[in-house]
Amino acid sequence: MATMQDIANRLGVSVSTVSKGLNGGRDISEDLRAAILDTAVELGYTSRSARKRESGRLALFIENMDCSSESDFGYDIVMGFRQAANRDNWAVDVIPLTKTFQNSERYDRWMVEHKYAGAYFLGLALDSPWMDQLYNTTVPSALLDNFIPANPNVACVGTDNDEAIDMAVGHLHALGHEKIAFLNGSRGSQVSDQRMYAYLNSMAKRHLLIDPNLAVYDYFVAEVADEHVPSFIDGGATAILCGNDLIASGVIRSVTGLGLNVPDDISVVGFDDLPLAETLDPPLTTIRQNRTELGRCGYYALYAMLGSVAIAKNLLRPALIIRGSTAVCRPRIATKHPDNQKSVLSVNPQMYNQFVKTSL
Amino acid sequence: MATMQDIANRLGVSVSTVSKGLNGGRDISEDLRAAILDTAVELGYTSRSARKRESGRLALFIENMDCSSESDFGYDIVMGFRQAANRDNWAVDVIPLTKTFQNSERYDRWMVEHKYAGAYFLGLALDSPWMDQLYNTTVPSALLDNFIPANPNVACVGTDNDEAIDMAVGHLHALGHEKIAFLNGSRGSQVSDQRMYAYLNSMAKRHLLIDPNLAVYDYFVAEVADEHVPSFIDGGATAILCGNDLIASGVIRSVTGLGLNVPDDISVVGFDDLPLAETLDPPLTTIRQNRTELGRCGYYALYAMLGSVAIAKNLLRPALIIRGSTAVCRPRIATKHPDNQKSVLSVNPQMYNQFVKTSL
Repeated sequence: MATMQDIANRLGVSVSTVSKGLNGGRDISEDLRAAILDTAVELGYTSRSARKRESGRLALFIENMDCSSESDFGYDIVMGFRQAANRDNWAVDVIPLTKTFQNSERYDRWMVEHKYAGAYFLGLALDSPWMDQLYNTTVPSALLDNFIPANPNVACVGTDNDEAIDMAVGHLHALGHEKIAFLNGSRGSQVSDQRMYAYLNSMAKRHLLIDPNLAVYDYFVAEVADEHVPSFIDGGATAILCGNDLIASGVIRSVTGLGLNVPDDISVVGFDDLPLAETLDPPLTTIRQNRTELGRCGYYALYAMLGSVAIAKNLLRPALIIRGSTAVCRPRIATKHPDNQKSVLSVNPQMYNQFVKTSL
Repeated sequence: MATMQDIANRLGVSVSTVSKGLNGGRDISEDLRAAILDTAVELGYTSRSARKRESGRLALFIENMDCSSESDFGYDIVMGFRQAANRDNWAVDVIPLTKTFQNSERYDRWMVEHKYAGAYFLGLALDSPWMDQLYNTTVPSALLDNFIPANPNVACVGTDNDEAIDMAVGHLHALGHEKIAFLNGSRGSQVSDQRMYAYLNSMAKRHLLIDPNLAVYDYFVAEVADEHVPSFIDGGATAILCGNDLIASGVIRSVTGLGLNVPDDISVVGFDDLPLAETLDPPLTTIRQNRTELGRCGYYALYAMLGSVAIAKNLLRPALIIRGSTAVCRPRIATKHPDNQKSVLSVNPQMYNQFVKTSL
């Protein structure tokens, strides 16, 4: 990380001039100020106090995530980040990240100009204007659930999806389920891809049949369930793993709408453990993401990067929360097309290419 | 994490009695002291100062890793851990971990009795006596390159093997290599398994042929090269990726011994970037693990767990260090058995089962 002296050396000016440029001093030209800011960005300038991690300001950018009320997914993440950062004397500003704002500012320059030593991004979309800039940023940046390859200034923070999905599949398998469907969230989202991959691996290592018709992507909303649940049931599924709790709530409604019972006929597992999960009927067995810890972990990743430790991934433990939506597997009456099931053992190349969009 | 009050409540004694038990006070019976220590272990007791992360003692256990001289793999890890911990006022004791010692003490109890708030383990073998105890420990414990499922008190620290191997394969692919062999370290070691998995995925995503004869496990020493290099060359390999720098040094020697040239005939890539790497002839292209950062990262993982944040994996960025052992692929004279090569496209189930020992 560069110092004011580095910027002064590069531009052939004094440190006090650099200081004026960075701190809004009046008696320098706008051109020189711009040059100082651009050089600060290029060299990866960080203030002395931030470098020593004694104090400074951190930005918490929120794009596509509800954070305002206690029942929102992001609320506790914001709280956890604030608590951990404040404890070390960092000020935290929460900044809504609109596309207009991103289009009107360069990320690195904006951060230097506004004296933020680092940022944690929640809900950043893959097509966000700043996403490309993060591939080369010199500003310590932590991203919830997004992985950027090769840049030592960017860390991915999230829940360990491998372990999470394996816990869910293991729980269902221990209850006797073998035909476990997976109704995943959006294709192209990194967490969805990781979870699909984890599902395939977890099924394969248990020698459970993977049926391509029982492993699908759709969207992270309840409404997608009605389209897939009937074909899952026709396909012989006795359990449905869902990409998040909202999907799971839709699945419970669809199963019930078909005159079947959760969990007696179909076990259902969610992902996230939103406040909604325990209010469902039956209460939802789900994978808990500890949102307060996801917040704190974002700060820890920044703390490490500010100390020049290049964190790639900082992943938290998931927890399996067992409630009423899963039960011992009971054989059902034969499905309509028992001989038409295209089942494959383990992960084959077609499955791999069909499902796993490598994100590296 | 439990307090002295929790222990006192459980045993029906006063907090001052618990304090005597934990701190070696004289006027309590040995039976009561044992009960207090056992209860402290059971409840996961941590001292107030350690809980507040103000000060305390951390153990750095070293089993199978050379750390004493600057050229040893572990030296900078120890330094990095010490620096980061001392900065936050933690005392660090480096403790050699013999099997005799492990067999004579229970891990949790020993830690409580000796007032260590947490530990970082380097080189812990899968068959070590304390390994089983780590599945259920209540003491914050970070493990370099070992993953223990489901225990929120244990974190895995390491380099991101997925990204590391993908960088190496990508580098060779960009140079025109398609038949890339992988001479891996020991089967059953978690890092070896992760690296084999990463190799299969990286080859598959680039649509490169995976030949089972070109992807083998052996040991992390130079001497294994002579056995495998001739068959790699017969199999048409133009590049050999190695599980570590020692293997790579043996591969360079073997290739040269066969009258071929590195990198003109065969490109070679190592892993680790030991001091040895740049002294080889030609100097070795390799994946750098930043050992100082691996040390600091061990402390950061402990810091997070002491604050009750359940880190699963804390993975660092690898760096590709390009030196003289890799070059543009040049076609070689046809190999002996060009039609006998059993090549498979992408990852198939047999490959999966043959190579990937899932470690979860």
